Amino acid sequence: MAGNSIGQLFRVTTFGESHGICIGAIVDGVPSGIDLCEKDLQYDLNRRRPGISKFVTPRKELDHVKILSGVFKGKTTGTSIGLLIMNYGHNSNEYKYIENIYRPGHADFTYHKKYGYYDYRGGGRASARETVVRVAAGAIAKKFLLNYYNIIINGYLTQIGNIKFNAPNFLKIKNNKFYCLNKNKIYKLNKFLNMLKKSGNSVGAKVTIIAKNIPIGLGEPVFDKLNADIAHALMGIGAVKGIEIGDGFKFVSMLGSNSRDEMHHNGFISNHAGGILGGISNGQPIIINLAIKPTSSIKIPIKTINHDNTNVNLSNHGRHDPCIGIRIIPVAEAMLAIVLMDHILRQQTQCINK
Amino acid sequence: MAGNSIGQLFRVTTFGESHGICIGAIVDGVPSGIDLCEKDLQYDLNRRRPGISKFVTPRKELDHVKILSGVFKGKTTGTSIGLLIMNYGHNSNEYKYIENIYRPGHADFTYHKKYGYYDYRGGGRASARETVVRVAAGAIAKKFLLNYYNIIINGYLTQIGNIKFNAPNFLKIKNNKFYCLNKNKIYKLNKFLNMLKKSGNSVGAKVTIIAKNIPIGLGEPVFDKLNADIAHALMGIGAVKGIEIGDGFKFVSMLGSNSRDEMHHNGFISNHAGGILGGISNGQPIIINLAIKPTSSIKIPIKTINHDNTNVNLSNHGRHDPCIGIRIIPVAEAMLAIVLMDHILRQQTQCINK
Amino acid sequence: MAGNSIGQLFRVTTFGESHGICIGAIVDGVPSGIDLCEKDLQYDLNRRRPGISKFVTPRKELDHVKILSGVFKGKTTGTSIGLLIMNYGHNSNEYKYIENIYRPGHADFTYHKKYGYYDYRGGGRASARETVVRVAAGAIAKKFLLNYYNIIINGYLTQIGNIKFNAPNFLKIKNNKFYCLNKNKIYKLNKFLNMLKKSGNSVGAKVTIIAKNIPIGLGEPVFDKLNADIAHALMGIGAVKGIEIGDGFKFVSMLGSNSRDEMHHNGFISNHAGGILGGISNGQPIIINLAIKPTSSIKIPIKTINHDNTNVNLSNHGRHDPCIGIRIIPVAEAMLAIVLMDHILRQQTQCINK
Amino acid sequence: MAGNSIGQLFRVTTFGESHGICIGAIVDGVPSGIDLCEKDLQYDLNRRRPGISKFVTPRKELDHVKILSGVFKGKTTGTSIGLLIMNYGHNSNEYKYIENIYRPGHADFTYHKKYGYYDYRGGGRASARETVVRVAAGAIAKKFLLNYYNIIINGYLTQIGNIKFNAPNFLKIKNNKFYCLNKNKIYKLNKFLNMLKKSGNSVGAKVTIIAKNIPIGLGEPVFDKLNADIAHALMGIGAVKGIEIGDGFKFVSMLGSNSRDEMHHNGFISNHAGGILGGISNGQPIIINLAIKPTSSIKIPIKTINHDNTNVNLSNHGRHDPCIGIRIIPVAEAMLAIVLMDHILRQQTQCINK
Repeated sequence: MAGNSIGQLFRVTTFGESHGICIGAIVDGVPSGIDLCEKDLQYDLNRRRPGISKFVTPRKELDHVKILSGVFKGKTTGTSIGLLIMNYGHNSNEYKYIENIYRPGHADFTYHKKYGYYDYRGGGRASARETVVRVAAGAIAKKFLLNYYNIIINGYLTQIGNIKFNAPNFLKIKNNKFYCLNKNKIYKLNKFLNMLKKSGNSVGAKVTIIAKNIPIGLGEPVFDKLNADIAHALMGIGAVKGIEIGDGFKFVSMLGSNSRDEMHHNGFISNHAGGILGGISNGQPIIINLAIKPTSSIKIPIKTINHDNTNVNLSNHGRHDPCIGIRIIPVAEAMLAIVLMDHILRQQTQCINK
Repeated sequence: MAGNSIGQLFRVTTFGESHGICIGAIVDGVPSGIDLCEKDLQYDLNRRRPGISKFVTPRKELDHVKILSGVFKGKTTGTSIGLLIMNYGHNSNEYKYIENIYRPGHADFTYHKKYGYYDYRGGGRASARETVVRVAAGAIAKKFLLNYYNIIINGYLTQIGNIKFNAPNFLKIKNNKFYCLNKNKIYKLNKFLNMLKKSGNSVGAKVTIIAKNIPIGLGEPVFDKLNADIAHALMGIGAVKGIEIGDGFKFVSMLGSNSRDEMHHNGFISNHAGGILGGISNGQPIIINLAIKPTSSIKIPIKTINHDNTNVNLSNHGRHDPCIGIRIIPVAEAMLAIVLMDHILRQQTQCINK
Repeated sequence: MAGNSIGQLFRVTTFGESHGICIGAIVDGVPSGIDLCEKDLQYDLNRRRPGISKFVTPRKELDHVKILSGVFKGKTTGTSIGLLIMNYGHNSNEYKYIENIYRPGHADFTYHKKYGYYDYRGGGRASARETVVRVAAGAIAKKFLLNYYNIIINGYLTQIGNIKFNAPNFLKIKNNKFYCLNKNKIYKLNKFLNMLKKSGNSVGAKVTIIAKNIPIGLGEPVFDKLNADIAHALMGIGAVKGIEIGDGFKFVSMLGSNSRDEMHHNGFISNHAGGILGGISNGQPIIINLAIKPTSSIKIPIKTINHDNTNVNLSNHGRHDPCIGIRIIPVAEAMLAIVLMDHILRQQTQCINK
Repeated sequence: MAGNSIGQLFRVTTFGESHGICIGAIVDGVPSGIDLCEKDLQYDLNRRRPGISKFVTPRKELDHVKILSGVFKGKTTGTSIGLLIMNYGHNSNEYKYIENIYRPGHADFTYHKKYGYYDYRGGGRASARETVVRVAAGAIAKKFLLNYYNIIINGYLTQIGNIKFNAPNFLKIKNNKFYCLNKNKIYKLNKFLNMLKKSGNSVGAKVTIIAKNIPIGLGEPVFDKLNADIAHALMGIGAVKGIEIGDGFKFVSMLGSNSRDEMHHNGFISNHAGGILGGISNGQPIIINLAIKPTSSIKIPIKTINHDNTNVNLSNHGRHDPCIGIRIIPVAEAMLAIVLMDHILRQQTQCINK
């Protein structure tokens, strides 16, 4: 109810602050009998890990996850799985200067007004640090989806600032550190991000997530449409300010006659709908675009107020990502995986004649 | 769980098919002591009602709502409110020809594959007819929000095809049948929609919803961010394929230095964020854009398959809206109202020192 | 959240007051493909119906249920099922005299203090009239349980006042109007109830519910144990003040050595546990006892207060059951059926190797 | 959904097995601004701790709880609270002999059949060890209830075997290690338990829990009655096989004329109802009786089967409590506290005119 849980049958509940002892989760509803070990979760944790390139925050974290329960002799037992990731790289003194100041673009102001109290250090509960355990929980879902349904989820950068990349064409590509498909544009991108870093600025991004081999029939009619639950999950990532399914905002200027996906006995002929019809998966790839806002805590000074409502100028010192769109990709993949696994379990109970 | 409910504390559960006897809902969690009568719900029901202009479906419905419980002597009692709206205008024979054919762009295919059975008449449960009772339930929320918090929610058409309208500037305007703000463009719009009607085609639209006088502090951190729950509610309306909060996809090409909303002791200086920071309302107007896909069931023929997976050509006979974006506006307002009321109730339990 | 819903995957939400237009429910999560018609629900509705013998309230109701949605061509479609039962037999004038008086043993006082408003007529939402739609919803569950799992649920009177009946021994018996197994005691019981009726008094009862052919594995460890969910469902029936699983309070004076159910390669040797071990069904019959309090609204006068907190003497005029334990039996069976169906659906998603 | 969570607004989710690394919980929905530290939780943890007398299991545990999040500078922040308690005293080798044997009266058989896999060591997830973190979470609720509502919850032993103790009369008594009120019977009780210990046997118990200073109006009508939610919470403790509210099963042989609680302008004259009317608290003390079954894992041999369904004789070696009713008392108090806190938060949103 207080918003720290997601999913109905596959349900993830999290806790932890940026500068607390650790970040953790309880993952409930994992069927018994699945092979699972900590190594299974580490691959995606490493993709999200800070400090892995010069264009992401230099905060150092090992991000080793500990599975505390729910697995016995290498198999899930059907009981709740406790996950724990320690915080090492926080330096709370770095944040002392904002103890009484609201950082524009951050949750400081709204948390303070909502609760009367908040942990200002590194964003506290509102920090992107919290997403580390979403990636761990999502990796359980990813493994389930891959092993039992052959579902593959991949995210890509499709735009940073005004630099656009080709839309992904489902080819398995070697991940580069930008998760982008046009290797020839990486030089340009490097240059742009270097410039941003020097000037203490940041930039927005567009991220595309694609899930393939989706069974037909996922998603509930009416309120819990698959797209509705996907939108909930992905809009629940900090910095996401827009989402499109399939052609998304392109539909605004399209006619009915050229926006419908014709059907043929071999399948759909196009995929304007992005894999979802009437809120239910139609077996085509699910295609999602996300709008990511630029990092707000940059070095360029900004006008703001302190807790006494007095005007002040603020120049952030903290470490930050020049483009949060890069590290958000494994988080977005994880959130999509959580939704898909939840709906696969939900679908198992819906039809008597299967 | 099966997706026919929305909300946590203010909770709406619905039933009913396009060609069934009636559409209904149970609205739970309405506080006791609120003045409520059927007339309160009728204003928005009339705005959504079919047959009210030549650019919406000619299906005739009275859409009179009956309150069956939960109100005594004109006051809500705190117990669950039953709502019922009869179906009069359906003619199931009109749909006989699609009994064994999947209409592209519709849920026929996915419902059939999901459940093994479906009511093909007028879209059954997947019909936009189902939204009538969302509007009734939303009208309860709207009344609560207005009377106790002075919250006003208004939706506008901001684009149809390539015709763009001014962004709303919060002035109370007289509603025209397009819910658009530029009266000088109505002639152009009329002409365009007439042309579509004649050619049996349809078009997409962009809809903007604005909510004013929002208390600071609505929304839960992490998964149930206010924007996440709004995205869930609005993406749960059929035909919505994209959603933006505040500047939305414009953020992709913006820099951090010009996308942050500066703060001043008199308040925020801009509203790029669309009224939500860190998932929590900041007191500024909430601004949402929706991408609406064109109506799929148009007269222009299309290739499709029947239940035996045989290729067929289909030309729809049924009645339809040339631009579903017009009648979706009161539905979108209702869904936003449901989310805001739910979060206002949720917020009442969160802080001990209020 | 406001308590008008029960179940997770099989979920029943209800509305309606004793003297309102009707009582209704939305039943969500019914799998598609089940044969269902209104007649299927009528058998149990008739068993619970008032006015069927001289020992139950003379209020006259037809209790015909209408299925409003979710069934097409005789099969469930997987979408939400609306149920409606009209109220005919209420006479609100009969209740005018208690408009400002709290009836002891009733919810008048607590509803008024909780909500500030309440519908005093016939108990309003707190009336046993509300259970009529639980019986209808439960009949859907009963049909599912019987047809797909051969599960049979039967309730019996095992004690009224000091008259005790044999514990049921699982033999299919012809239902008499007391649902009791000892035909030779019916004369005694008739006499006792006649005496109560004449003196305007009422009496408590013990009811035993038995469910047979339960699959092993229903129930969730920790908080949602099968017995915990059963206790929730059955304690949620007005007038139930105690519940036992298996030997229940007899365990208090038993030793470990004679209270364990020994196991043998042919199965369990005894059933002290009442069919549930560690919160999970073990395949033996589930055996439940309920303590039912006497009807409170009897003719014998009682001291109470009115809304102004002034002492008054109250003698009830309204119609009542001399022993509510008789008509509660189909309600208790229905509630157990709802829990079992919910847990059967929940269990379908728990294990990968089935 | 998988049963490891309880509560709606105040919500506790747990993980951990008897012989795992640790037991933990996430406590969500705690309002911000409450003073909280680890010491607040330790008092009840010490009352439940094993090894504190010769009549409870000798397993040695420190049961020090760690608060991992949600508290900043000594105040709750409104975000989720992570709790962790390490396991030290387990010796898995002691349980090797039951790796392939189902212990009668335990969850071994049902877990294995439900999930296909289970952690046999010390009962795994089904162990009473799991309740340690319920006591920690319940202590948060207890502090809230005491500090903001002056609600006091106390549990007592009222019967062990055939030794009955006086019903508690609300006098604050010094806790003895049996939580019983008749000091003169402690000698007798000591002797009886010594005899049981020597003979390797165990015994059942009746436990009474009383909560005082309850606000009027807690509990939801219909399904989530306060008594229904209490029954769910307390039946969710392993070994609880029966529950009574107020006079409970005594109602079976009572007449309506002597079972109603008369009202007077100074309040209720009696409390047969146990503080709950129509599912809603009436301001009187809430009185609950629990039936606790004898510990099943005793030294006296028993017939059972192994995983291959072969008959075997089993004599338990593991450590056990001769009467689990003693250590269950702080657990039952904690569960009641969790329910009451949840309903206090739920009630805050129900009435507009407060």
